[in-house]
Amino acid sequence: VARLDEERAVRLLERMLAPTGTHPEHVLLGIGDDAAVLTAPGGKLVWTVDVNVAGVHFDLKWLPLLDIGWRSLQAAASDLAAMGARPLGAVSSLILPPGFSSQRLARLAQGQAQAARELGCPIVGGNLSRGGELSVTTSVLGSARRPLLRSGARPNDELWLVGDVGLAAAGLGVLQRAARTRSKAAGRCVRAWRRPSALISAGQQLSGRARAALDVSDGLGKDAARLAAASGVRLVLVESRLRGLLRPELCSVAALLRKDPLWLALEGGEDYALLAAGPRARRPRLARPIGRVERGTGAVLEHEDGRCSPLESLGFDHFRR
Amino acid sequence: VARLDEERAVRLLERMLAPTGTHPEHVLLGIGDDAAVLTAPGGKLVWTVDVNVAGVHFDLKWLPLLDIGWRSLQAAASDLAAMGARPLGAVSSLILPPGFSSQRLARLAQGQAQAARELGCPIVGGNLSRGGELSVTTSVLGSARRPLLRSGARPNDELWLVGDVGLAAAGLGVLQRAARTRSKAAGRCVRAWRRPSALISAGQQLSGRARAALDVSDGLGKDAARLAAASGVRLVLVESRLRGLLRPELCSVAALLRKDPLWLALEGGEDYALLAAGPRARRPRLARPIGRVERGTGAVLEHEDGRCSPLESLGFDHFRR
Repeated sequence: VARLDEERAVRLLERMLAPTGTHPEHVLLGIGDDAAVLTAPGGKLVWTVDVNVAGVHFDLKWLPLLDIGWRSLQAAASDLAAMGARPLGAVSSLILPPGFSSQRLARLAQGQAQAARELGCPIVGGNLSRGGELSVTTSVLGSARRPLLRSGARPNDELWLVGDVGLAAAGLGVLQRAARTRSKAAGRCVRAWRRPSALISAGQQLSGRARAALDVSDGLGKDAARLAAASGVRLVLVESRLRGLLRPELCSVAALLRKDPLWLALEGGEDYALLAAGPRARRPRLARPIGRVERGTGAVLEHEDGRCSPLESLGFDHFRR
Repeated sequence: VARLDEERAVRLLERMLAPTGTHPEHVLLGIGDDAAVLTAPGGKLVWTVDVNVAGVHFDLKWLPLLDIGWRSLQAAASDLAAMGARPLGAVSSLILPPGFSSQRLARLAQGQAQAARELGCPIVGGNLSRGGELSVTTSVLGSARRPLLRSGARPNDELWLVGDVGLAAAGLGVLQRAARTRSKAAGRCVRAWRRPSALISAGQQLSGRARAALDVSDGLGKDAARLAAASGVRLVLVESRLRGLLRPELCSVAALLRKDPLWLALEGGEDYALLAAGPRARRPRLARPIGRVERGTGAVLEHEDGRCSPLESLGFDHFRR
């Protein structure tokens, strides 16, 4: 029996679920990007789904139910942000373990409702079931005139980062190591992990300027490699540029955790920043240059001395944890 | 700590997830009907989600993975059928237990792909996660010019049934009781449970003729009570009419299971028939009259002698099982 990892399973599903011929005309983009793109009568729809399972994606010890609700919607909406889409709404499907009280359900739903208000993304439907463990599956639908795909980066494009990376991983590290710190920096990192925000408005600003984008959910290293693969190019992330963008809070907490802050930025997931590529002249103000697109394949980190390290092996895989 | 049943939990979620004011203008209908209704640029979208959890909604002993895949998509699409919508696509979110092989995943996906082809509902996206138990969450999106809601039934409407009821419950009974029968009737019932079909084309025929509809997923009795509540009317199901419509295969298997076939029809779930209400003169050919709509509340079964029994207490609740 073959071992199943996430990339392998996704490829298998793509193969199995591809229709015998091609998709019907209204399906502009199926499995493989941040979200699917459909034409409905009169416009383009962007549609995706995300799941959070207790014990896999989060530990109930470190994440209050309010934040589980908040994060589940923000994480799903982040795929819309990466496409430059405006949210239309969400449907939420909950599996609740035995003994899950209505009080706990109310806190979870309150977190979802808070995120829905912040995002302008109302929860319009849902489903409930009993099951062995808590899980929250969130499907979000948005509209976009020209959805921003992963596949459009071209050689000579600049590589842009929108939002911060590494803070969420540092925050999770603080919680996991039960690091006894009440520092402001640690609090900021914990909050980045517990209360991420999908960069919807930034995604819309990128749209029309960037040629390709994705959201950084599994670590900048791994997601850069995905963008490179989807666009058929090589991405070069410049270490000095990245180091220059790291937040002081991240550097301070990284020291506490005895980790390189750059490693947290490249390897740590769940930041929901956006990585995009586009012509230098069209870079929007909120995007910070962190490297370049070249002919070739893969994603690398270019060190100060000019040497390059491959980034594919970094990043984490929810599926394996 | 308050005990949580499905209806209570749904009410709680409706309350929690209702936005502070009202929904934005593009949300025509939120939580509470078979699916949400949105206006996207140029048309109306109908959107819903359904979940199937191993050990709650099905037993892996009795349901091959191919059929789990098939059923999950058909069950979700049935909500589109009830709205008279045409499917645009589906996104599928899978939680896989440890040791779930790629061969098993392939069979599950094959069942989904078969149903997608039959329904003309391509699977355009998805998500995978590890977890303690297998679950399949399916969100489907469709379009409809005039979505058929649960809330439109009026006194003096006729009550219509499209499709069969009771066969799926009989089929599950055959499997659960390990009834040693190779009869054609038993095979037909087992197949009705394992391989239901969403009545998409029938739903489109009802649209424009019926005033209200829902799909019968939790038993005709319970779903009739839901239609009555949503429309603010009383539904009278006429026993003799219903008995006259029961399939011979159902009656034969019911005898084997020592159950009243009518009880299986009223109490048994997962048939995915459609229950609708509309003016007698507009009844489409495929709809069979089974009762009437009156002023009042609740749903009752009218016996041959004119007495009426309430139907609310029948039907099953996935949440409690």
